[in-house]
Amino acid sequence: MKISALLTSAGINIGLCVLFLSLYSILRKQPANIRVYFGRRIAEEHSLLREAFILERFVPSAGWIVKALQCTEEELLAAAGLDAVVFNRMLVFSIRIFSLAALLCISIILPLNYFGQNIHHLQIHSEQLDIFTIGNVQVRSRWLWVHCIVLYIISGVACLLLYLEYRHIAKLRLIHLKRETPSLGQFTVLVRGIPKTTKESCSSDVDDFFTKYHASSYLFHQVVYKAGKVQKIMTSAKKACRKLEDFTVTMVDHIVLPNDEVVENRGEDDLNDSISNTDNNTDNEECAVAFVFFKTRYGALVASDVLQTSNPTKWVTDLAPEPNDVYWSKIWLPYNQLWIRQIATLLGSIVFMLLFLIPVAFIQGLSELEQLQQKLPFLNGLLTKPYMIQLVTGYLPSVILQIFLYSVAPIMMLFSTLEGPTSHSERKRSACCKVLYFMIWNLFFVNLVSGTVLKQLNFFSSPKEIPVQLARVIPGQATFLITYVLTSGWASLSSELMQLFALIWNFIRKYILRIKEDTEFVPSFPYHTEVPKVLLFGLLGFTCSVLAPLILPFLLVYFFLGYVVYRNQLLNVYRTRYDTGGLYWPIAHNTVIFSLVLTQIICLGVFGLKVSPVAAGFTIPLIILTLLFNQYCRKRLLPLFKTFPAQDLVDMDREDEQSGKMEHIHHQLHTAYCQFPDTEEMQLEKIRIAGNDKDDEERCSSGESNNKETCEEQQPRKDLSHPTLKGLPVNRLQNAIRSITFLIRLQKRGLS
Amino acid sequence: MKISALLTSAGINIGLCVLFLSLYSILRKQPANIRVYFGRRIAEEHSLLREAFILERFVPSAGWIVKALQCTEEELLAAAGLDAVVFNRMLVFSIRIFSLAALLCISIILPLNYFGQNIHHLQIHSEQLDIFTIGNVQVRSRWLWVHCIVLYIISGVACLLLYLEYRHIAKLRLIHLKRETPSLGQFTVLVRGIPKTTKESCSSDVDDFFTKYHASSYLFHQVVYKAGKVQKIMTSAKKACRKLEDFTVTMVDHIVLPNDEVVENRGEDDLNDSISNTDNNTDNEECAVAFVFFKTRYGALVASDVLQTSNPTKWVTDLAPEPNDVYWSKIWLPYNQLWIRQIATLLGSIVFMLLFLIPVAFIQGLSELEQLQQKLPFLNGLLTKPYMIQLVTGYLPSVILQIFLYSVAPIMMLFSTLEGPTSHSERKRSACCKVLYFMIWNLFFVNLVSGTVLKQLNFFSSPKEIPVQLARVIPGQATFLITYVLTSGWASLSSELMQLFALIWNFIRKYILRIKEDTEFVPSFPYHTEVPKVLLFGLLGFTCSVLAPLILPFLLVYFFLGYVVYRNQLLNVYRTRYDTGGLYWPIAHNTVIFSLVLTQIICLGVFGLKVSPVAAGFTIPLIILTLLFNQYCRKRLLPLFKTFPAQDLVDMDREDEQSGKMEHIHHQLHTAYCQFPDTEEMQLEKIRIAGNDKDDEERCSSGESNNKETCEEQQPRKDLSHPTLKGLPVNRLQNAIRSITFLIRLQKRGLS
Repeated sequence: MKISALLTSAGINIGLCVLFLSLYSILRKQPANIRVYFGRRIAEEHSLLREAFILERFVPSAGWIVKALQCTEEELLAAAGLDAVVFNRMLVFSIRIFSLAALLCISIILPLNYFGQNIHHLQIHSEQLDIFTIGNVQVRSRWLWVHCIVLYIISGVACLLLYLEYRHIAKLRLIHLKRETPSLGQFTVLVRGIPKTTKESCSSDVDDFFTKYHASSYLFHQVVYKAGKVQKIMTSAKKACRKLEDFTVTMVDHIVLPNDEVVENRGEDDLNDSISNTDNNTDNEECAVAFVFFKTRYGALVASDVLQTSNPTKWVTDLAPEPNDVYWSKIWLPYNQLWIRQIATLLGSIVFMLLFLIPVAFIQGLSELEQLQQKLPFLNGLLTKPYMIQLVTGYLPSVILQIFLYSVAPIMMLFSTLEGPTSHSERKRSACCKVLYFMIWNLFFVNLVSGTVLKQLNFFSSPKEIPVQLARVIPGQATFLITYVLTSGWASLSSELMQLFALIWNFIRKYILRIKEDTEFVPSFPYHTEVPKVLLFGLLGFTCSVLAPLILPFLLVYFFLGYVVYRNQLLNVYRTRYDTGGLYWPIAHNTVIFSLVLTQIICLGVFGLKVSPVAAGFTIPLIILTLLFNQYCRKRLLPLFKTFPAQDLVDMDREDEQSGKMEHIHHQLHTAYCQFPDTEEMQLEKIRIAGNDKDDEERCSSGESNNKETCEEQQPRKDLSHPTLKGLPVNRLQNAIRSITFLIRLQKRGLS
Repeated sequence: MKISALLTSAGINIGLCVLFLSLYSILRKQPANIRVYFGRRIAEEHSLLREAFILERFVPSAGWIVKALQCTEEELLAAAGLDAVVFNRMLVFSIRIFSLAALLCISIILPLNYFGQNIHHLQIHSEQLDIFTIGNVQVRSRWLWVHCIVLYIISGVACLLLYLEYRHIAKLRLIHLKRETPSLGQFTVLVRGIPKTTKESCSSDVDDFFTKYHASSYLFHQVVYKAGKVQKIMTSAKKACRKLEDFTVTMVDHIVLPNDEVVENRGEDDLNDSISNTDNNTDNEECAVAFVFFKTRYGALVASDVLQTSNPTKWVTDLAPEPNDVYWSKIWLPYNQLWIRQIATLLGSIVFMLLFLIPVAFIQGLSELEQLQQKLPFLNGLLTKPYMIQLVTGYLPSVILQIFLYSVAPIMMLFSTLEGPTSHSERKRSACCKVLYFMIWNLFFVNLVSGTVLKQLNFFSSPKEIPVQLARVIPGQATFLITYVLTSGWASLSSELMQLFALIWNFIRKYILRIKEDTEFVPSFPYHTEVPKVLLFGLLGFTCSVLAPLILPFLLVYFFLGYVVYRNQLLNVYRTRYDTGGLYWPIAHNTVIFSLVLTQIICLGVFGLKVSPVAAGFTIPLIILTLLFNQYCRKRLLPLFKTFPAQDLVDMDREDEQSGKMEHIHHQLHTAYCQFPDTEEMQLEKIRIAGNDKDDEERCSSGESNNKETCEEQQPRKDLSHPTLKGLPVNRLQNAIRSITFLIRLQKRGLS
């Protein structure tokens, strides 16, 4: 690729970006799209900003950019949680380090590479891109030590920045811990692997155990039921209710909601059967998991840290997730299953990653047209026209790859669900790791080292050759990487901002299907796809920095744009239902360290290829120093992301006790965790009736006021730990029964 | 090597063994050697069994074998501690699994290998050994599935036995925890990384911190002083005293021990200087480490498990080692140094392991005589005689290798010391791991894959080739391995039993130097050399079992003999001063799992070489199953070796409280840990005066009655935490000063 071609491509992409941003700035001002672009604010601030028609709405503006940039870290923390801040810091770190890298590499390395060989230079715009890479430097060049020094500077500054960010986020995590609204999860321990004793019920076992061994701090407990039939009934009832509501509102206004009398119907018998079955089941199987509540945060911490009994798979204790973060549908899984599930999903992910080589190989086959024509002769007729050939070789491969790539995140999410996570945030974080490994493996290693599947396997079977191989490949692939940043990077940001799918779906629903607006559904930020994307671009930036610096300006634009776009999205579009408490940072840290070490190893290979023993020799201590730095961070900062410091918890406990808040918190704990909440509509109804300004206490998940999944506040909680269904709140069951029997009747009448 | 040659060699070695055992059975009955062969019993049971001359003493007998075999596990536990039992279980496990392996492989695999090819068989005693290995089986043989099934059986039974042993030892560990004499270490937490505050002394900082955050269970604390000059003075004084005593008793009876007046001498000034220097030093540097004592075991466990503050490198808490296990000379090291030390010693060990390739290569060079003669032409005259050639090629290499190997254990011990261990047992265990890695790497991998250094590095740089390479090498090296077991294995047991060095040294000291018997010095069992030895032979056994089964009978003899010899040694010779509490077992477990997986991988390679896809295909799930088993053990049993279960500790605490023992234990804690004990002689003197039957309480390390390192019992402990030297017991300092000044005077008079 020539410089001119690159500039053309860049121009087109910039134009597209500007177009999309302008379009966005108009579309966001349309009241019809308000649910698409301001989902979070509507859901949380309850301000429906519908305005009349004014001209201003159709003029592009940059106000949103200013707003996104003006927002301080505290505001972001308050609006979108700690994870959003961590994600923001990843972008800030990337901008900082790649600004420096771009400055150094463009001003020093680029001229060195360009004049690296005594060849006749063409006019600048018609030069090949390869001439700007280290590949153009002469073998045994005296200037390679400059590359080595720049590598040292970039690595050193990256480590320094990384350390500062790590420390900053650790501090934020502690501040987050001490926030105003007390986190109820800190008082709660999730107990798994409760051993079965035949004599009594599980609930009294839990009571006995904690009364005996944690007498001073134990408060009470709550058993988790196996989310089998009960859960299914509740879920189907919920769905039925929602469908029903849409249905009634939009089309059949005259159908009256069924009332209690409907229960005396034909459906009743089946229903009673299923309930009595469930009754028997829960009797046997309630006893997998329980939430245990403690008087103090410190008590809960101690109970979660200590090995309870001489069988480490019994009475396994961990700090519980926050009430609105609990992943109810998997939390009841027996503890003994979990490690098998984890291993199975690990194997599954590896198989999936290897199977993905097949479409990649197929795509690479598409580029080699002759082979394709030989193997699939019926294509010959099709492939005679030149534009068809261009389409098949140039466009189709990346489309197919993108389609396959879109399947990665959901599949990894599925794997993470199968693992048996206890919380939504854990599930998303685990999926994030899987997607990250996948992208690094498939997009970086496999895609770069082009060739057939077998060739690739050979490549990875001789580890000593990897640096040399990568050193050969990376400079040559600079063109591909720059185009990747231009298309995939910039385009993904535009589409993220535009929310194309949501926009179209909103339009269809509103004007074609005419379904009532779904006020409840506001998506959470997809950390599991966006974090790996940002980190992958970071990896590309580091590995290319010294070798092919021309990529850096384009990357920098990506990070700047990403900074604005993601901040805007976090503030306006996505709702934060749950938070990992900054646990995405260790992932980012490890990935950056991996990127740095990989860069250094590749440079080692390049210096070896260019026969520069001094530069190669000086790179080895750099690798060791980077690894030592990582080890230091593991010792110094990582423990803070795994547990909480006792000192802070004890201080908080004392403060709360002295200010008399503790009583209030203990009261809240009684209604915090409810496995079978009311259906959302019923509850919304209740809230509407009760008025929006009612006390927070009445909501079930009082720790987070932005959560709607509440439950009965006055219901006697002790019942929940009883092994039969009797303890379930009566009106909730009645609701379910009512909805189901109504649905059955509808079906029989042929209405649905 | 032919069968007949093997039998000859075996015969010679058996003869030598019988000779050594008989010699031992006579030598052990000689009163002169009683310190060599009954060190533990004399030291612990104080029964000096000197008998008159009787004929029986000069008749070989097998009574000691019977005694060693009759001893039950409880007796062994009582006499030599849990580590001895664990070591014993390693031998029992090896005997069991290799009995089965020998049975299966000799009766099934050996005939299959022998008749594997349609060749003319010679008379059995003149057959080559190679004919009994899998190398003799035809390519594509239908009988390879038998090898595969036997591999399955051995792996399965090994895993089962391994699990039973693991569980048994975990149970023993719990019983050990609940033993009669309460372990004081369980009440004690070692605090490192105490932050420096300028305002007050470190001692009050510790007091403040634990009073504030562990108020309910904190008892008191004791600061550890930097073992700088004070320690050096004490040690030199101790040595001086010992020398002096030997000296006075044996030769110069008329020299009177110096008394207090001697202090008014010229030496005084220097001494005072050095003491005041030390004073200043300790003032600054006392504050690295402290022992903190708790009211209950559970309190100490909680304090050790929990992350204390938001800086994980400050207030680092761990359960303290037992009083007599503390490694005083390194325990004061600043916590921040430790990870650097650990990394440095890791790098050091790796470099040492790689450097060891040089003597190995040199030795392999010796075997290739022609090359040697070319390189060192001056040897030509020497190497003309045939017996010289035989000596150089056959004998010299193994002698040189053995000499180099003798240096390994001390060097690894040195590395472990530099790491900064807190206890003797931790130091030994760490050295054990290092020696084990070294032996597996250097004796197994490097030695088997003969060739030059460069060839070996090439071999390890292509991991895909390793199974195939090993598959080629192992059957061919069967002869070498069998000879190795015969010579190194059996011989090392005989020399262990005979204690040749100790015997000779005892003789020299007694009859030539005429030094008084050193009643104090009884060695501890060298786990760091013996555990790796046993595990390495296990590795050899597993890898050879299916491929070259002829090694198994010889190995089995080794393990049987080892069982008898080591039990005898543990019961009679070695003294148990400290104990890891069974922490050697996880090392053994991991090594056996490694051996099994390696065996399976090698078999995979062999089946691949023999073109038996069915057998190779069935081996892969076996590898996965073995790894899954290991994962299960890690989940199920390993946590018990890292911490103690809260349930048991709470139960023990309650029991002790109810029986009123707790008071007694708290009292003991005050005098348990003393950094600067009296010199042993002075103290022995004191004990002699006080009588042997005095209460245990008076001894410093009252937890273990067999420990002699006691300290002042009535001394006000609170003083110890004072930052100046003033707090050190006055009479102790006086003792030191007295000894040193006396030495100075001796030197000046030209006597020493």
